[in-house]
Amino acid sequence: MEQANKERSLVSKVMDGLVTGIVEEKYGAILPPQDVLSKEFDVSRTVMREALSMLLARDMLDVRPKIGTRIRPMSDWRMIDEDVVNWRFRSKPDPLFVRDVIEFRILIEPRASAQAAARGSAADIAAIREAFEAFRVIRPAESGYQAADELFQTRILVASGNQFFRQMAAIIRGALSTVNPIVNDTQISWETAVSSHQRVVEAIERRDPKEAEIASLAMIDHAAEEMAGAFSTQPSTRV
Amino acid sequence: MEQANKERSLVSKVMDGLVTGIVEEKYGAILPPQDVLSKEFDVSRTVMREALSMLLARDMLDVRPKIGTRIRPMSDWRMIDEDVVNWRFRSKPDPLFVRDVIEFRILIEPRASAQAAARGSAADIAAIREAFEAFRVIRPAESGYQAADELFQTRILVASGNQFFRQMAAIIRGALSTVNPIVNDTQISWETAVSSHQRVVEAIERRDPKEAEIASLAMIDHAAEEMAGAFSTQPSTRV
Repeated sequence: MEQANKERSLVSKVMDGLVTGIVEEKYGAILPPQDVLSKEFDVSRTVMREALSMLLARDMLDVRPKIGTRIRPMSDWRMIDEDVVNWRFRSKPDPLFVRDVIEFRILIEPRASAQAAARGSAADIAAIREAFEAFRVIRPAESGYQAADELFQTRILVASGNQFFRQMAAIIRGALSTVNPIVNDTQISWETAVSSHQRVVEAIERRDPKEAEIASLAMIDHAAEEMAGAFSTQPSTRV
Repeated sequence: MEQANKERSLVSKVMDGLVTGIVEEKYGAILPPQDVLSKEFDVSRTVMREALSMLLARDMLDVRPKIGTRIRPMSDWRMIDEDVVNWRFRSKPDPLFVRDVIEFRILIEPRASAQAAARGSAADIAAIREAFEAFRVIRPAESGYQAADELFQTRILVASGNQFFRQMAAIIRGALSTVNPIVNDTQISWETAVSSHQRVVEAIERRDPKEAEIASLAMIDHAAEEMAGAFSTQPSTRV
């Protein structure tokens, strides 16, 4: 135990030192090799490797063969602890949790859709269209439906151009994993889901932020109504 | 290295098993003692202790003397990786980062203020008033100013009653650490900061969600304008 704790705190110290160097732009784009870093910090290669693997897991670094360990743009650094998000959404949802989930979707997605319409790049918007075309040909009962919806919503968050909106993707994916198994289980419901997604894509393509926001809200409202039926709770879609 | 990796993956496996038991409500409110858990998972007490400490660090458990290790409500589980947030906000802010920070504050805080007005408990609202009274008597140059502002904004997020809004507190605190050193450095600016905070409190106390939302937006706009001056960028406060 003492040994493990000692190593843990050493790893934390090294992580902190590496991050300080990174934010102070001491290393440039590529980190020095591991053995150079171990010497710099005066720690074993094992400790250095662990510290680097913690930063790697948080999308702060990536390893490029023959190039080395690249420092990723800070906007990619993962602020969300995806383990906790996944654990949280694994639990059986109660009505209050569902209300909070839907309120959070209503907070993030309409604004992100509006931003995507206002300033998404042509490539961002083409990626949203592509995700929608994949989504529309897959049925709720098929495997891959959930992943297709996640990709669609994630690409809207990316197209918003705001790094904090983008960071919320993990939570939105969790939210969909709670919502989707409950809605979309009838033909009419599925058709409504497709057409409400389509309305969002088209508004973004027309560069119409206001309509994109309204369409996104309508898409979530559709899901919220079915959730409310299933849980007999009424999430407030507005305050 | 191999030894460390092996232990890491064992710890992960035990964490996953513990979380599964928790979400399936296998343990009730209090976890069994560590030596019972080590036997259940057939791992050393060191490994079990590390797994528990990882869950503890994520606000999933707390240790109560004489009672044992209590499982915290799932809404407390920390989805935000505060290390990464702190590292991210430690870097020198560039104009795009500042824009994203302000857009994120505009996304979260006005809606949270409206929700606080609509459904905060009397105790929640008294806590906001208390934080405001502490904030108004401290000057920007004094130590504790940043902490007082953080407490004020955090209590509004708590009063919103939505667990996801509350989770965003760590990012909002980071945002304030970027914004506050730049604004509030003149007498007029400080008076405006105090009166704009006051308008938010009073709207929440009057249970007026619409006014709380507008007041919150005005409070952030005030900060945004000064940031824009400092960075010669113009964050869009609306889409």
